Amino acid sequence: MAHSLKKLKEVILIEKIAKSFKSKDKSVVVSIGDDAAVVKKDKGSYSLYTVDMLIEGVHFKKGEDPEKIGYKAMAVSVSDIAAMGGMPKYALVSVGLPKDSALTMAQGLFYGIKEVSRKFDIDIIGGDTNRSERLVIDVFMVGEVERKRLVLRSTAKAGDHIFVSGPLGNSLAGRHLMFEPRVKETRFLGKNFKVTSMIDLSDGLGMDLNRVTEASHLGAILFEESIPKNKGVKNTRQALYDGEDFELLFTLGPQDAFKLMSGIDKKNKFNFYHIGKMTSLFLGVKMWTKDRCFVDINCDGFKHF
Amino acid sequence: MAHSLKKLKEVILIEKIAKSFKSKDKSVVVSIGDDAAVVKKDKGSYSLYTVDMLIEGVHFKKGEDPEKIGYKAMAVSVSDIAAMGGMPKYALVSVGLPKDSALTMAQGLFYGIKEVSRKFDIDIIGGDTNRSERLVIDVFMVGEVERKRLVLRSTAKAGDHIFVSGPLGNSLAGRHLMFEPRVKETRFLGKNFKVTSMIDLSDGLGMDLNRVTEASHLGAILFEESIPKNKGVKNTRQALYDGEDFELLFTLGPQDAFKLMSGIDKKNKFNFYHIGKMTSLFLGVKMWTKDRCFVDINCDGFKHF
Repeated sequence: MAHSLKKLKEVILIEKIAKSFKSKDKSVVVSIGDDAAVVKKDKGSYSLYTVDMLIEGVHFKKGEDPEKIGYKAMAVSVSDIAAMGGMPKYALVSVGLPKDSALTMAQGLFYGIKEVSRKFDIDIIGGDTNRSERLVIDVFMVGEVERKRLVLRSTAKAGDHIFVSGPLGNSLAGRHLMFEPRVKETRFLGKNFKVTSMIDLSDGLGMDLNRVTEASHLGAILFEESIPKNKGVKNTRQALYDGEDFELLFTLGPQDAFKLMSGIDKKNKFNFYHIGKMTSLFLGVKMWTKDRCFVDINCDGFKHF
Repeated sequence: MAHSLKKLKEVILIEKIAKSFKSKDKSVVVSIGDDAAVVKKDKGSYSLYTVDMLIEGVHFKKGEDPEKIGYKAMAVSVSDIAAMGGMPKYALVSVGLPKDSALTMAQGLFYGIKEVSRKFDIDIIGGDTNRSERLVIDVFMVGEVERKRLVLRSTAKAGDHIFVSGPLGNSLAGRHLMFEPRVKETRFLGKNFKVTSMIDLSDGLGMDLNRVTEASHLGAILFEESIPKNKGVKNTRQALYDGEDFELLFTLGPQDAFKLMSGIDKKNKFNFYHIGKMTSLFLGVKMWTKDRCFVDINCDGFKHF
């Protein structure tokens, strides 16, 4: 349920309609509107469910290596599960294959799917294979999370510190297809900290931070100098809006934030970056720039630089 | 995971490759190869998972009423869950929408989806909406079944009696889009009988009976005169091979079969038809015709009439 790549305005409207379907079932903890749906499993844990569809000509070009497409289709869903604090468990994969290259395509896709399933110990337990004019792949993933480790995007608090799990921007240079979903990171965080909110960065820090502030009814401030950038990233705009980073954006209370920051370079091998703070709703989403001024960070861009 | 409509030979080969992925996880009871995957949920019940993808130009024509497509996409998955003896619980729906008609299409699809979700009390808890040149809809469904009521296609026994839940054939006249998944029937059967095997008829009695006999390592014999036919069905071939009936095909031991047959017209409002018997593997899958002779029933047709 990542919002990967730019979407039609109509599609965003449709998603809003969909969100209006409220769940009546008491075992549904979170329905449409977070990275994954959350359903009570047993006393101590929740089931997590997410789907992500990739379509030729929209999410990847015709002729793209099917192995990479298979990898990405799986990895995007793993990233959604990670963003809830959970672990992936099972996957079902639907594919639509063009007739003229069905076998070679399927083989490539399977290699990519297998790579992710092996890396994260995910069982492929079902699927549906069809003929299609254009390649389509849709991965449904089932995950699991301990009740106390579930993290939503709607539960950040004013004063919380904002972190990302890696450098941002320029992902379309190749990393958007072969990225590493942050499962180890989310499990480490859940074990050692009380993570107050989390989302995976599919549409870029600018848009996804706005999703967190909207869901949590808060504002936020980013420190431009602290935003980590990937190689080849020329400016902050790219780090904010390129999208498809698939890093985790999360918040911690002041004590936990201090604990994480003091140990970042010593106790663990992860790369967490402290990039800002949550503020109250009426302050909006801002960035404190290198030039020492505030700019608004909107979903689709920011005002001046 | 219905095998709706005729598939490419390559696709069938791919499905065989997929089946070769054996699950290592001990909580996976049934992986690829039945109507739905089965995973341990809690002490008394299993979770059921299935996906079904419908693609414009393959499963339905361009210009087909989107409400009917939405209905069918959901109903096909409900039918898969019913074929395991279970009840549908939650669904996640991925759609790819053509740009020029995204909103009206989405609205139509949602009406159809809503109809099924209301009828069977299914919560829509997630989804993914994308742009696509051709309409694609992929439904992932989560179901539940009591452990003792789970029915597989691989557990029929020689001597069991074969039943179907309704008349067959000519479904492409319209019923293939707006059929009634047999949830009430499967729940009635599970409560009152020990159902020894079950499958839903997506590719027609001829092919799907062969799936049951193959999975159960048995043969079968059908009685031509007993096969119930829909209006407009001119011959037995249509009842066997038209496909998309979405009736349940199931087997009962002799005692249960007698109990069901003696009560069919009195105690319940369902229409179960006794159509044959399971035999041993070396007898193959046959039909005893009206002309008092045996014919072979293969996946793709039968030999003479």
